[in-house]
Amino acid sequence: MQVSEKLSQLRAAMASESIDAAIVGNTDPHNNEYVAPRWRCREWLAEMKGSNGTVVVTADWAGLWTDSRYYQSAEEALEGTGIELMRMSDIGVPSIAEWLKKNCKEGETVSFNGTNTCLKQAKAWIKTLKPAGLEIRSDIDFIEPLWTDRPAAPKGELYLVGDELTGQSIESKISAVREKMADEKVDAYLLGRTDESCWLLNFRGTDILNQPTPYCHTLVTTDEVMFFIDSDKLTDEATEKFTAAGITLRDYDEVEGVLEKLSSDTRLLIVPHYLNYQLAKASEQCIQIEGRPIATDLKAVKNATEVKHLKQSLIDDGAAMVRFYVWLYKSLKAGEKVTELSASKKLEACRAEVPGYRHVSFESIMGYGPDGALNHYSVDEESDKPVSLENIFLIDSGGNYAHGTTDTTRTIPMGEPTQEQKEDYTSVLSSMIELLILQFPEGTTGAQLDGVCRLNLWKQARNFKHGTGHGVGFGLEVHEGPQNISGVNAEHMKLGMITTIEPGCYRPGKHGIRIENMVHTVVSQETDFGRFFKFENLTFCPLNVDLIEPSLLPAEHTEWLNNYNAEVFEKLSPLLSEEETEWLKHECRAI
Amino acid sequence: MQVSEKLSQLRAAMASESIDAAIVGNTDPHNNEYVAPRWRCREWLAEMKGSNGTVVVTADWAGLWTDSRYYQSAEEALEGTGIELMRMSDIGVPSIAEWLKKNCKEGETVSFNGTNTCLKQAKAWIKTLKPAGLEIRSDIDFIEPLWTDRPAAPKGELYLVGDELTGQSIESKISAVREKMADEKVDAYLLGRTDESCWLLNFRGTDILNQPTPYCHTLVTTDEVMFFIDSDKLTDEATEKFTAAGITLRDYDEVEGVLEKLSSDTRLLIVPHYLNYQLAKASEQCIQIEGRPIATDLKAVKNATEVKHLKQSLIDDGAAMVRFYVWLYKSLKAGEKVTELSASKKLEACRAEVPGYRHVSFESIMGYGPDGALNHYSVDEESDKPVSLENIFLIDSGGNYAHGTTDTTRTIPMGEPTQEQKEDYTSVLSSMIELLILQFPEGTTGAQLDGVCRLNLWKQARNFKHGTGHGVGFGLEVHEGPQNISGVNAEHMKLGMITTIEPGCYRPGKHGIRIENMVHTVVSQETDFGRFFKFENLTFCPLNVDLIEPSLLPAEHTEWLNNYNAEVFEKLSPLLSEEETEWLKHECRAI
Repeated sequence: MQVSEKLSQLRAAMASESIDAAIVGNTDPHNNEYVAPRWRCREWLAEMKGSNGTVVVTADWAGLWTDSRYYQSAEEALEGTGIELMRMSDIGVPSIAEWLKKNCKEGETVSFNGTNTCLKQAKAWIKTLKPAGLEIRSDIDFIEPLWTDRPAAPKGELYLVGDELTGQSIESKISAVREKMADEKVDAYLLGRTDESCWLLNFRGTDILNQPTPYCHTLVTTDEVMFFIDSDKLTDEATEKFTAAGITLRDYDEVEGVLEKLSSDTRLLIVPHYLNYQLAKASEQCIQIEGRPIATDLKAVKNATEVKHLKQSLIDDGAAMVRFYVWLYKSLKAGEKVTELSASKKLEACRAEVPGYRHVSFESIMGYGPDGALNHYSVDEESDKPVSLENIFLIDSGGNYAHGTTDTTRTIPMGEPTQEQKEDYTSVLSSMIELLILQFPEGTTGAQLDGVCRLNLWKQARNFKHGTGHGVGFGLEVHEGPQNISGVNAEHMKLGMITTIEPGCYRPGKHGIRIENMVHTVVSQETDFGRFFKFENLTFCPLNVDLIEPSLLPAEHTEWLNNYNAEVFEKLSPLLSEEETEWLKHECRAI
Repeated sequence: MQVSEKLSQLRAAMASESIDAAIVGNTDPHNNEYVAPRWRCREWLAEMKGSNGTVVVTADWAGLWTDSRYYQSAEEALEGTGIELMRMSDIGVPSIAEWLKKNCKEGETVSFNGTNTCLKQAKAWIKTLKPAGLEIRSDIDFIEPLWTDRPAAPKGELYLVGDELTGQSIESKISAVREKMADEKVDAYLLGRTDESCWLLNFRGTDILNQPTPYCHTLVTTDEVMFFIDSDKLTDEATEKFTAAGITLRDYDEVEGVLEKLSSDTRLLIVPHYLNYQLAKASEQCIQIEGRPIATDLKAVKNATEVKHLKQSLIDDGAAMVRFYVWLYKSLKAGEKVTELSASKKLEACRAEVPGYRHVSFESIMGYGPDGALNHYSVDEESDKPVSLENIFLIDSGGNYAHGTTDTTRTIPMGEPTQEQKEDYTSVLSSMIELLILQFPEGTTGAQLDGVCRLNLWKQARNFKHGTGHGVGFGLEVHEGPQNISGVNAEHMKLGMITTIEPGCYRPGKHGIRIENMVHTVVSQETDFGRFFKFENLTFCPLNVDLIEPSLLPAEHTEWLNNYNAEVFEKLSPLLSEEETEWLKHECRAI
């Protein structure tokens, strides 16, 4: 079915329900970043891929809101569909709610699907639309009847992870959660985000491609822990382990009924950006307390065991990347055909050799030349292009291992770099190093760090439109909160947090550059002005020096770089063949 | 009456109303920063001065929450009162709501005065306390019956400011507000903050010391503008002008009744941090739309006329400061006695010579030696200390002129500075210059700029606990929003905004350093990466060079400094006597 026909059918269905505007997103009931195919309603409707994109359809207009990462790919996908691209990262572009407020008439009705819209988003829409005289419906799934071959909910088996990896038992984590619940004076707490349940109960799942979190909920009360998951996902071992820990097992769909039956004096902690609107309504009789996500806050501060494992995983991962680099250059020099897709598969194969490998942490971004300028370009059969020994190559990828989740970006020259490429690369590298050598006082926010990172780029009138960094889960999701490094993040960077630093510079039609390391917040020193923290580098993967314009790299940054590459060589060479070691030695030479 | 007796009486009154905890602040019905004596309830109760401080009293405990600016002065004020100091800028110190949640038992009642608590604050308290099982009362003014000599509401006359100063007529401003109201689809908009009414209707008032905004409200609807102010504050000229502009004049106290009578289908725009809880409740029958403060947003972007006048006011103000410096050094060298208070009075007298002078923009901060380490020390008869030719002197002051509001901080050596003083001063100076030479992309937030400013201090393990900068009104309040430069500010720095940059470094018991200039956001350049903005410097007052440790000032900053001091000399010397010019020439010498 063509997009235009899908839109026609949707409009007919909207008319029969007297809906004037429908919002169709790609979100699932847990506001996961990566969602099972069943929930990719926007992708089905507009045939536009990517982790961010929401369609609004009215009787005579349709628009798709997405951020700068997807501008170019969305533009291509939407061509000829009649759906207008709304560039939401640009200044002056109205938000969905602002657009609806302006373009809908008083008394008209807007609909969204409450089961796959988080409470925070639903409330924000309602807050803007209701006072503008618009009606809201959240109980219609327009896509279900139209999407005839819609995939079923996934049934992936879950598996346990041992305390020797997580460093903390289920029982100890439950105690820690209950302690925080007591501080917050709540009787019950619904863990809405799936990775929170994985962390709490020391398991992982296989429902979603490259995402270790199965569809599930956990409700912790003062005397019970109810784990909601389809029973056919549970192995005997898991059932036994959970039962032994005193956990009540319930089917996934039972959560709504359990919430409806909570007594009206229950003080229920809910987290608006993790809980869907439908479940929030199901528990309306309780005293709902909107608060911080306890499990997310606890999970973000990694324990010593997790950090120890993660460090090893990043060394293993770095060695895998070096094996890939050696293959890449060798193949091309031997005249073999390499494409972005074949390179992506090879890199995955290199990672798969690492003991403990589960899957990639996200679809690799393999951007050769102009494709690198598409911020979060994801290669597929259609977009695949050959890689040659000419332009520069942006590779953003990572592995999900039993001992840690990794996320590394490198930009490497495939031929003789241009002066512009060198200057862009050196600016970006210098921006990353600035945060790696920084010390900052306890209480520093992600937004302050974001400004520091961009300073060097701004001085040269460069900038990038995505965030500077994000939290990373331990063998869990590659993006996790609460912290991130961006212009509006007010969270404090805490000891033990694991975060990426990934500045970039993109020239559409030419090339893209991004460099990304993972870091661990540690103490720098205690002074009269309080405690200062700093970032301990965790990523060990060579930083190419042929792309550097030495006159633009401050001496302090050059020193850091030389020490870094020396350490990379020291840590990775024991894991490599003689040929790989030789290549790495040259790659890590001091400048 | 002793503080302990006031507390006893308050506790007795609380007991008679069955109130378990009472919150007593210094806020007025408009959430003004500086308030008329009538509203200084916390100051009366705890005998602690300062613009930030809130007391919580229970049957057996009392605490005062304040920020780091007032730690030392509050500590001294509270000694022996039985009121505990709660250092709210410190990490780990619970907020008032958190403390109450933890320490009050279920079923207990907390009270605050709804008429002098803004809706935002009230909602935040209620959101935390209600779910914890606490009752809330907002209808009791405990202080009124106890404070027997409580001052009456002020009756200061207002005065008009002409379009030649404001650059925009009342009619044009009302049109601009209505245009935004139409965008927001609201029928009525209550300007809760007093400076918003002053801006809209081109007047100033005399109700509050050093604050040009009288107690008033303005309600703008699609076809009416109602100005609520006590009629005895209106001159004939003002009445005539407002009537000619089609404005309905009402008594200040009538606003509540007018709000109560708005029809239930009125879409009323309210701004939760500017409107008091009582008035929010009075208009509950309307469709209340919580939104951005239209008048504040429009006011923050200065027009060309305002900027032109402001530039002149800062030159006049700089010359007044130079006249003061010359007097200060000359008097001390002649063996005359100078104290912080006499210096403050002299500085005020120097400013008063400037045509258009109204009053100081805030109580001058005159911190000699260790007093400079008290972030926002305000000198009075009790705290007054002699100034001598030894330590360093922090002077933070400004004038409110018809042609602009100024705010300048300088730190000057009175004797031979120590190496530590030089290093601290140079770090702070370098931090300010970093923002003055910066270019940053459109959309940059205050928090990102805050990180950039602090970078240099962090590198040397220094920091300061106050914000880096704030918006400044035109001949209006010295602190205004929406923008500021601090770790959590997510507002974009817009073209035409006027903001201060004021990093500092404080060593308790030794000295304090702060340097502050005012800046104007202008375009730097347009590139492939979008528009870049920069700050145009507005403040012209010499930056002392004897306090500089040259080895710590980067070449680019030294160049900026030398150009700056040269420009200061060029701009100020035509306004000075021969003796003053000679002094300034030496002060502005290049390094």
